[in-house]
Amino acid sequence: MSYFDYKKGQLYCEGIPIKSLAAKFGTPLYVYSTHALTGQFKILTRLFAGQRPLICYSVKANSNLAILKLLIGQGAGLDIVSGGELYRAQKAGCPAKRIVYASVGKTKKEIEEAVRYGILMFNAESLSELRVLDAVAGRLKKKVKVALRFNPDIEPGTHAYITTGKKETKFGLDEYTLQAVYLHPAAYPHLSIEGIHMHIGSQITKAAGFVKAVKKVKTLIARLDRRGISVKTLNIGGGLGIPYDEEENSVVDEVKKQVIPFLKGMKVRLIIEPGRFIAGNSGVMVTRVIYVKDTPHKRFVIVDGAMNDLARPSLYGAYHRIIPVSRNARRTTLDARRVDVVGPVCETGDFLGKNRDLNVTEGEYLCVMSAGAYGFTMSSQYNSRCRAAEVLVNGTNARLIRKRETYKDLITKELV
Amino acid sequence: MSYFDYKKGQLYCEGIPIKSLAAKFGTPLYVYSTHALTGQFKILTRLFAGQRPLICYSVKANSNLAILKLLIGQGAGLDIVSGGELYRAQKAGCPAKRIVYASVGKTKKEIEEAVRYGILMFNAESLSELRVLDAVAGRLKKKVKVALRFNPDIEPGTHAYITTGKKETKFGLDEYTLQAVYLHPAAYPHLSIEGIHMHIGSQITKAAGFVKAVKKVKTLIARLDRRGISVKTLNIGGGLGIPYDEEENSVVDEVKKQVIPFLKGMKVRLIIEPGRFIAGNSGVMVTRVIYVKDTPHKRFVIVDGAMNDLARPSLYGAYHRIIPVSRNARRTTLDARRVDVVGPVCETGDFLGKNRDLNVTEGEYLCVMSAGAYGFTMSSQYNSRCRAAEVLVNGTNARLIRKRETYKDLITKELV
Repeated sequence: MSYFDYKKGQLYCEGIPIKSLAAKFGTPLYVYSTHALTGQFKILTRLFAGQRPLICYSVKANSNLAILKLLIGQGAGLDIVSGGELYRAQKAGCPAKRIVYASVGKTKKEIEEAVRYGILMFNAESLSELRVLDAVAGRLKKKVKVALRFNPDIEPGTHAYITTGKKETKFGLDEYTLQAVYLHPAAYPHLSIEGIHMHIGSQITKAAGFVKAVKKVKTLIARLDRRGISVKTLNIGGGLGIPYDEEENSVVDEVKKQVIPFLKGMKVRLIIEPGRFIAGNSGVMVTRVIYVKDTPHKRFVIVDGAMNDLARPSLYGAYHRIIPVSRNARRTTLDARRVDVVGPVCETGDFLGKNRDLNVTEGEYLCVMSAGAYGFTMSSQYNSRCRAAEVLVNGTNARLIRKRETYKDLITKELV
Repeated sequence: MSYFDYKKGQLYCEGIPIKSLAAKFGTPLYVYSTHALTGQFKILTRLFAGQRPLICYSVKANSNLAILKLLIGQGAGLDIVSGGELYRAQKAGCPAKRIVYASVGKTKKEIEEAVRYGILMFNAESLSELRVLDAVAGRLKKKVKVALRFNPDIEPGTHAYITTGKKETKFGLDEYTLQAVYLHPAAYPHLSIEGIHMHIGSQITKAAGFVKAVKKVKTLIARLDRRGISVKTLNIGGGLGIPYDEEENSVVDEVKKQVIPFLKGMKVRLIIEPGRFIAGNSGVMVTRVIYVKDTPHKRFVIVDGAMNDLARPSLYGAYHRIIPVSRNARRTTLDARRVDVVGPVCETGDFLGKNRDLNVTEGEYLCVMSAGAYGFTMSSQYNSRCRAAEVLVNGTNARLIRKRETYKDLITKELV
């Protein structure tokens, strides 16, 4: 079920017409649906019901405090990747024992902050990091739990920039290094190395890569087990893809049929780290048409949202569906023209969608779908553009969860 | 002459060792050289001495107020592309009559602000925009000067994302539309349409594209002249490229020999809009090595600067030279290993440089060169990373011109 749907020609988020939100809060505007967020969380709870995993929501997908708080309230833990995300986790009231921390570049300061807060576990990515973790833990007189991030050398079939489980990437430890660490626990006296973590990529729409990776991990755990080393925690990361267009989304079914059976019977505590799966289709970016510009070669629909607001089309060539907020019965699809939807930023790379069949007029609102994950979190002030506002809808209630930036915000850290 | 050079094995910015700046202000850190900025400005002044143009520095390249103020003090005007940049121009004390405003997506509000401030000229990009400009000018009882942005359909030979003078792009008006506007001044009673603007792209290293575009403009101006329409202002935009590696930079010489002759004898006021040419090689990003990670396939140098701090490598595949801040005589180039320099952000796309021959140790500083333009201005808080600090060096004096963000800054606009 979608929480973004037309009623009598008006696009709604839950019980509120998006047009009224745009009029009230201005554009570009991120709008999120409470029930979409919690609904996706519940799908995962059901999918992994047999394993009762700790579901650590991946903060980087959408880190707004209100969204973190909402998911924490549903029982979620958090997957963090920086000191800033730890700070957010604390501010959102996440219990420390529900936080896992992954990143190839945790600084000493960030590690200290996380050890002091008492997070559940670090996902360690290199021998150097293990040494720093051990030193910090020793200094703070703590025993720190660690999972080793395993690089299974798997091709998940997604964009190269978000493929993270290939041996050529910076992520994780290869099988042999990982075993070497497990065989030398005395080298890290202040660490309790008890888990294996993997994360093969993002926006994965076929379970095949997962299956291969989980098989590899299972073999690895069995091999360690034969040497008397028991792996207590298995963190299979995130990466479950979502539909960005009207395609069927079969990944949940595939995971159910192909991945879950492998997990059955494994005596490990399971952790999963969904981000995009929860937030991606739970949010949209609303934008207003500034100009319709016809050139001899193309029609451009120039909107007030740009690559600084939503980087994915420009950065990854990502596809986002773009639909009108108000459907006009008199405008049939026959009137649609092939257009490029572009922003005001002075780069040709600034587009939200190319070659779309749309019939739009100046001043009307458009909705860029599937913008709930890696939308606002990747936004910048490029071209000195104020970052957008964010609104969270719950039924017929809409709450501003991030104020629109003002010109003053652009320069507040500058000293003349 | 370079203002970033080694003395006794230490990399300096003007009279200050970069190491001491990194130690004092932390990393990642943007460091700019006052004399490099003013030196580049002077090169342009000399290059176009015969034309005495208004040099409008392109704010989007590097919009820090201190840098704007410095260039305004040298006599520069500003090329702005948004209301936020107009705000910066005002705060930096730029005289209104030295501001030109280009953008395909100027909103009514932004146009009003600029008309009220009394800027020199709008570079208009569409018929719709002309209508809005005229309406706003009428309402505010002003006569507003306009240059029409001409799309010359020129291939400048740069990255597709920063090619802006091809007919397939969203920018400017084609020749016929442009002439049509000039032939119907009565349609825009509150506008004084008196200039032609062009901008064919960014980081152009060969003059050939410029030459073609200027030829086309010259023909166009002559054609209008025959119909009794005199074009008073010619804005040839920016786009002059800079060397990102140790290659020779011949573009200045080429412009001198190939473009300047075309401009001679043209009875127009010339405007140019350099951005990268002034700021690009006037700044660097200093970053610290967190971990050196050896995998069976590659060595990764993991630094504390990432794609959120400097987007160009990830977004455009741009090359930036990366050099050690301290040269150690004992480390010869023979000891160098082929490495990828990557940041802590959880994406494979997060790299600053690939396959570089470097010999580095954990904790040392590296300098990412040519980061003065499209560096900080494109930075984001992705992965909840605090944005970097910026320092301006003048001789042996270093001044913090933008404070490093804190965790608190990440959430200050959020409402829980």
